Amino acid sequence: MANKNSVAFVGLGVMGYPMAGHLSSAGFDVCVYNRTQAKAERWLAEYKGRSAATPAEAAGDADIVLLCVGNDDDVRSVVYGDTGVLAGIGKGAILVDHTTVSADLARTLAESCAERELDFLDAPVSGGQAGAENGQLTIMVGGEATVFDRAESVMDHYAKSIRLMGGAGCGQLTKMVNQICIAGVLQGLAEGLHFAERAGLDLAEVVAVISKGAAQSWQMENRSGTMAEGQFEFGFAVNWMRKDLDITLRAGRKLDARLPLTALVDQFYADVQSYGGGRWDTSSLIERLRR
Amino acid sequence: MANKNSVAFVGLGVMGYPMAGHLSSAGFDVCVYNRTQAKAERWLAEYKGRSAATPAEAAGDADIVLLCVGNDDDVRSVVYGDTGVLAGIGKGAILVDHTTVSADLARTLAESCAERELDFLDAPVSGGQAGAENGQLTIMVGGEATVFDRAESVMDHYAKSIRLMGGAGCGQLTKMVNQICIAGVLQGLAEGLHFAERAGLDLAEVVAVISKGAAQSWQMENRSGTMAEGQFEFGFAVNWMRKDLDITLRAGRKLDARLPLTALVDQFYADVQSYGGGRWDTSSLIERLRR
Repeated sequence: MANKNSVAFVGLGVMGYPMAGHLSSAGFDVCVYNRTQAKAERWLAEYKGRSAATPAEAAGDADIVLLCVGNDDDVRSVVYGDTGVLAGIGKGAILVDHTTVSADLARTLAESCAERELDFLDAPVSGGQAGAENGQLTIMVGGEATVFDRAESVMDHYAKSIRLMGGAGCGQLTKMVNQICIAGVLQGLAEGLHFAERAGLDLAEVVAVISKGAAQSWQMENRSGTMAEGQFEFGFAVNWMRKDLDITLRAGRKLDARLPLTALVDQFYADVQSYGGGRWDTSSLIERLRR
Repeated sequence: MANKNSVAFVGLGVMGYPMAGHLSSAGFDVCVYNRTQAKAERWLAEYKGRSAATPAEAAGDADIVLLCVGNDDDVRSVVYGDTGVLAGIGKGAILVDHTTVSADLARTLAESCAERELDFLDAPVSGGQAGAENGQLTIMVGGEATVFDRAESVMDHYAKSIRLMGGAGCGQLTKMVNQICIAGVLQGLAEGLHFAERAGLDLAEVVAVISKGAAQSWQMENRSGTMAEGQFEFGFAVNWMRKDLDITLRAGRKLDARLPLTALVDQFYADVQSYGGGRWDTSSLIERLRR
């Protein structure tokens, strides 16, 4: 992507909307598609670009087609079929999937692209809505190095760190490692703060002292305050985390990896959903202990 | 402690040995006691000071008596009885316990001291052997503010952070929160790295990318490399962690705090002990998943 050529962006959710916006602001010719047309119109009122009636049409004259939708089924529905990306995309283009999906789907997409002389990268992101808005996402990529080199300068407009982790599916597998680590950190932090509450300690004082040592974590520094206050109407939703843990646990089964804590925390999130907390931030695990 | 007066230090283990050393180097008149006399002699060969035949004798002319031994029973054995600290310590002195013990014992010690017109602080530390040697420990203190003010300038010689958390027992309770958080972080990290291994990912690359975001932790930054290499002959031993989790889980029961992950990780550490890993670092949880 030596020149700023034509880019298609499929999926204008809380992540895709600002990501596509960064590309427009950087001077790319951006054509967007969103299932709910009203959101595409809102995007066009804010940014310079075009919109298309189908993913196929959006992909029509794009050098790189970027997806950021919900789950495996959502990706399949915008990629395959008469109106899907693959029905419209030109030879030699790159399809990049920023959605967090199964590694199996990533490999299937890579094969589908290869059959059509297209290139593919699985490229799930972390950094949340704030990272997308500030252009400070971390991107974990699976695919060929030569393809990575061509796509990096485009993704660079909304990322602080982009890393090629291996072949097709390796971006998704790395994202799964990330979610496993977060599940452990958050449940430990929830139990620690819950214990501190029951013991009558001042949570802010406790965090001030233990965050200087071996118990420190990003979650402790960034979520303990809102956990103490019971604020969960923000951040990364429990429903999305359960989707990620579902693909992670299924991958673990295939890989013969043992994930007892991950499986347990997934069930704890099911409890939070049962209290109506599906849209709460993942740090709401502490709420479960308070009931 | 405006002047550098007489100090007794009971327990010259991997923590107490260098802690007592810092006080000697700072000019205090230090009298040490250790159950195994040979270690006291080794300390006297390295540092200026005196040694005593019993805890009572060591405490005899001390303004402040510091303990750093193994567990609740060890503390009771050096404090109570004919040769214990309380049999020798003078009125108005301060007893400081740096051992990680139950909050119940901390409160009992505070009462025993009050009956004798002595002051008491529970003051468990974190930072490990390296922190003790470098004088960079974190100290979580329970007790009276006026007593804390008198003892702080002494403890300052081996600490980077000293904080009063509340009344008697609150130092111990804060240390328990620390251990709960570490248990969660480490099991999540162990499962994440184990999954990454099974998936054929490069662990160093995975850590390089995910440690920039919401999965980051001190343990990830400082232990993932040795976990990947299977190096566990260092650090904070599983046997000690199980002792800490035992007092933590018993405190949780009394406080009606729910600690499902902490209880599970304690059992995982029992597995590690059954493989002969009782002296391995706590990060050895990953070894259990590899078997």
